[in-house]
Amino acid sequence: MRTSIATVCLSGGLVQKMYAAAEAGFDAIEIFEPDLIAAPQSPEEIRALASRLGLTLDLYQPFRDAEGVDESAFADVLHRAEAKFRLMQRLGIDLMLVCSNVATATVDDDEVSAGQLRRLGELAATYGIRLAYEALAWGRFVDDYRRSWRIVELADHPNVGVCLDSFHILSRGHDPKQIEEIPAEKIFFLQLADAPALSMDVLSWSRHHRLFPGEGSFDLPAFLGHVVRAGYDGPLSLEVFNDTFRQTDPVRTARQAQRSLRWLADRTADLLGEEADQHASLPRLPEMTAPEAFDFVEIKAPDTSGVEVLLEQLGFDFGGRHRSKQVRLWTWGAARIVCNDVPSASPAPRIAAVGFDVADSDPAAERAARLMAPPVHRRTYAGEQALRAFTSPDGTEVFLSHAEDWMGEFDGGVSGADGHDARIDHVNLVQPWHSFDEAVLFYTSVLSLTPQPTQEVAGPSGLVRSQVMSSPAGGVRLPLNLLPTGQPDAGQQGQAQHIALACQDIIGVVAAARERGLRPLKVPGNYYDDLVARFGLSDGLVATLRDLDLLYDRDPDGEYLHCYTETVGEVFFELVERRDRYDGYGAGNAPVRLVTQAG
Amino acid sequence: MRTSIATVCLSGGLVQKMYAAAEAGFDAIEIFEPDLIAAPQSPEEIRALASRLGLTLDLYQPFRDAEGVDESAFADVLHRAEAKFRLMQRLGIDLMLVCSNVATATVDDDEVSAGQLRRLGELAATYGIRLAYEALAWGRFVDDYRRSWRIVELADHPNVGVCLDSFHILSRGHDPKQIEEIPAEKIFFLQLADAPALSMDVLSWSRHHRLFPGEGSFDLPAFLGHVVRAGYDGPLSLEVFNDTFRQTDPVRTARQAQRSLRWLADRTADLLGEEADQHASLPRLPEMTAPEAFDFVEIKAPDTSGVEVLLEQLGFDFGGRHRSKQVRLWTWGAARIVCNDVPSASPAPRIAAVGFDVADSDPAAERAARLMAPPVHRRTYAGEQALRAFTSPDGTEVFLSHAEDWMGEFDGGVSGADGHDARIDHVNLVQPWHSFDEAVLFYTSVLSLTPQPTQEVAGPSGLVRSQVMSSPAGGVRLPLNLLPTGQPDAGQQGQAQHIALACQDIIGVVAAARERGLRPLKVPGNYYDDLVARFGLSDGLVATLRDLDLLYDRDPDGEYLHCYTETVGEVFFELVERRDRYDGYGAGNAPVRLVTQAG
Repeated sequence: MRTSIATVCLSGGLVQKMYAAAEAGFDAIEIFEPDLIAAPQSPEEIRALASRLGLTLDLYQPFRDAEGVDESAFADVLHRAEAKFRLMQRLGIDLMLVCSNVATATVDDDEVSAGQLRRLGELAATYGIRLAYEALAWGRFVDDYRRSWRIVELADHPNVGVCLDSFHILSRGHDPKQIEEIPAEKIFFLQLADAPALSMDVLSWSRHHRLFPGEGSFDLPAFLGHVVRAGYDGPLSLEVFNDTFRQTDPVRTARQAQRSLRWLADRTADLLGEEADQHASLPRLPEMTAPEAFDFVEIKAPDTSGVEVLLEQLGFDFGGRHRSKQVRLWTWGAARIVCNDVPSASPAPRIAAVGFDVADSDPAAERAARLMAPPVHRRTYAGEQALRAFTSPDGTEVFLSHAEDWMGEFDGGVSGADGHDARIDHVNLVQPWHSFDEAVLFYTSVLSLTPQPTQEVAGPSGLVRSQVMSSPAGGVRLPLNLLPTGQPDAGQQGQAQHIALACQDIIGVVAAARERGLRPLKVPGNYYDDLVARFGLSDGLVATLRDLDLLYDRDPDGEYLHCYTETVGEVFFELVERRDRYDGYGAGNAPVRLVTQAG
Repeated sequence: MRTSIATVCLSGGLVQKMYAAAEAGFDAIEIFEPDLIAAPQSPEEIRALASRLGLTLDLYQPFRDAEGVDESAFADVLHRAEAKFRLMQRLGIDLMLVCSNVATATVDDDEVSAGQLRRLGELAATYGIRLAYEALAWGRFVDDYRRSWRIVELADHPNVGVCLDSFHILSRGHDPKQIEEIPAEKIFFLQLADAPALSMDVLSWSRHHRLFPGEGSFDLPAFLGHVVRAGYDGPLSLEVFNDTFRQTDPVRTARQAQRSLRWLADRTADLLGEEADQHASLPRLPEMTAPEAFDFVEIKAPDTSGVEVLLEQLGFDFGGRHRSKQVRLWTWGAARIVCNDVPSASPAPRIAAVGFDVADSDPAAERAARLMAPPVHRRTYAGEQALRAFTSPDGTEVFLSHAEDWMGEFDGGVSGADGHDARIDHVNLVQPWHSFDEAVLFYTSVLSLTPQPTQEVAGPSGLVRSQVMSSPAGGVRLPLNLLPTGQPDAGQQGQAQHIALACQDIIGVVAAARERGLRPLKVPGNYYDDLVARFGLSDGLVATLRDLDLLYDRDPDGEYLHCYTETVGEVFFELVERRDRYDGYGAGNAPVRLVTQAG
């Protein structure tokens, strides 16, 4: 599989972008013209640098407003094109992207467009250059790949083919199946982009909100399946206009981009089944079944004793000290929290690592490595389990582990058989603005979790966007919270993460915890008045909820009772009881929590 | 004029929002229900606080999904409503907003909706409460104010009227003229919001992108004119859902909101002409004609000598020292730059003040004060002109001044009659993310400048949004640049402002400036290669441009030649020559500048 990326996907100057693409293992780049124009290097220098970095220059783009024009305008087109062909020769690029006309088209006639493309192709041929004609979703007359292919067919010139772009096809809801009818040798280039489901004009959607495959809502494995069935064996190239990626470290973005293509190739091969074997260009990843339980959560700080007080109040048992590290284990049924006192850690206790229960970690770790997840190195001593771990985009370490393998390293605690059925229900991680989409791809590709629809919650300092990543049976739920953008410290400090613990009888559990000194977050009285109007609950139940500061939600499948502890450092706990098949997180109650926590 | 603001416009908790609204001079607030539910205070405490702050509680909102339902669902509606009526009695609010049904409507029949509103009105009447029925732009069946009025007419109950919201009417493109046919006593409430021209689904547009009047694209003076003609004399209330305002200091947002209503009332009175005299509720502001020239720009730093070197190279003459301050004047034709050495200033030279040429500053200053522009106090000595100045949202001081009044305070410079026709063409100010919309309103209302369509420019660290504020004849042009959001330091540091100087013969001026040592920003050679392809310029002209590092743009009305100096501290200069009636800023060249400046 040959991978390529358009320079417009990355921030920085052209040379920086090229270094980043090479570092992330791309084979090729598409040169986005404004990047070249603004670069101080000559075309010859760019060509030589690409050669040294092992990058080929696969495409020059875009050439606009080329066809569907009257003859006098077409003379100008040929003049413009010839200057670009000479430039491409200096760069050593033999493929140019020609977009369907947006601004200057006056003739809505396939024969005219085809005739002009043919003449452009004849001129290009004298420079050894080929043209890939692409239907833009907002083209004046040509906005459908089926029409651009008809025009290319009519043009009937060996140097004129089509470029297919998943964004332009899927954003318009066009069926990609007919791609299979295009002869492979006429598909000159393939550009891939994902995007969130947004209802806005397609031009703004395209220019600001494209995403890498696996980060949005498009079914790209199905799309790529059609292209592969058509026989296309050229580069898979990413063309992603995204406001955030324009601002972030290009090396990091390029790695994320490469990860997305490796994931996409694997998913597409899986979809094609035996057919895929004919296409060696789609490498597979080691298989990974999504974990169905959290193995542990680690909280780190110079002093975690404030957290341990909360754990004891909640009902956790002390599970022992680690034999070689300043680490203590706390257990409550299947919920395991590890408190790690590290003098050099940042002062506020926070979630340093999340373990996912993976019985056989070797293939999972091999998969993560192939997806360029940065490995974590922790010192292990003789007789200790060398756990496999990777750093997620927000810096939280992700362990692929299994409690039975490592619990023996803790001594002096009570037995794990405490008769409780508690477990970790979900772990809520706050994401910095620049790594939210990257995190979605990370958990999708590395852990095979599935992104759920995003939700927005109004807090006193702005809207919080939340996206849950979950396993098929709901055993692992990982809400990722994106704080309001624009805040200087968004995601950097002061915003708490949390661990939600599920139990069967929250009313009894909270009553007992209060006896041990737990003070749940105080819920305002107005909340309970509204609860009566909203759900028609019995007076008795509302009195109990009010007395215990419990929040309540209901969906068609069940009920949800929950409450929060105070925050210690940057972490707090939630107790939850899911009744029947309730599948949410009480999002309607989140504004109450956010206002109350803000004080 | 009675002013009101919905609590959803402001960040923070309910009590903070109330203090902010009172501080900004609002008469009333609308209570947005989620704000009350999340507040720890009882309804009685909120009522008492409002009373102490001098705020009335004019509206409780929203009550959703009330009509167009089957009878069994309507029984639930009455139950829900009664709980809210009791709550409103505790708050002392006698008006409730009832939105057209979005989620539960099953009956698309005006008679049914009217019958249900009437019964709701009968119940409300027993609590002394009135209902203001509003057509949401995305209502299931009722999404047009003309239909909501028809239903209210059919309901025919004294406690049932309409609420009009400019967003719901103008976002759908509905003609507001028919508002005049609604009897004044049936318009129970008026909500005002502006919005930018966006093409996206109306629900997202409404929930995230509303703006205060004067910050967007809606013609709100015309809208309000129709409402006033209908005879409405109730509060003007702002209901603005905006992602940025949710994050910014509520006191500042509330002042901005109050400013927007004062400006809107004045504009509407102006539009209504003599008719407005019947409506004493629309107070006028002192008149202000937009200034047609910059008076001066002040640059401040502990040491501004680096800037003075540039000024001298550019062709400025030393215009003298101020008689009592460490301030030096530089002039070049009508361009005046003042360099102010202040030991306590931040180290990098930056634009501290912009003077606008206003011959009679008294009414202009009175207008600014009425618009709550914060006054600037500067020490003046005997015989010195006490200049009128206000602080703009980004902190730059705005002077209303006139060179003849203050130039006499500078001694020892050369005569101003230098024979040059140079002048300040535009001043580009970088805006922090949270004050961009506020700045648009500030310059619109205080200086009567007009916002031009926004443009976006791709830079190496993200997209830069630019909005020019200009005077009718183009004598004053003030581009406001919004840096990429999400960057921790956006607008805070490191991003340069600039002053553009217009001259008649830029080729001669730059050649002479280079003789004096000026080194313009180096333009990449690829730029000139592209220029040939793009504009078909003569080889001779392109060679001259390349030689002098001049950039070039053309529009249907003329040509633009320009170049940039290096950056000193946080400021740089641009030289421009506008040929014929060119009216832009060479936006197409901005990416080249941004990449080159980033090095």
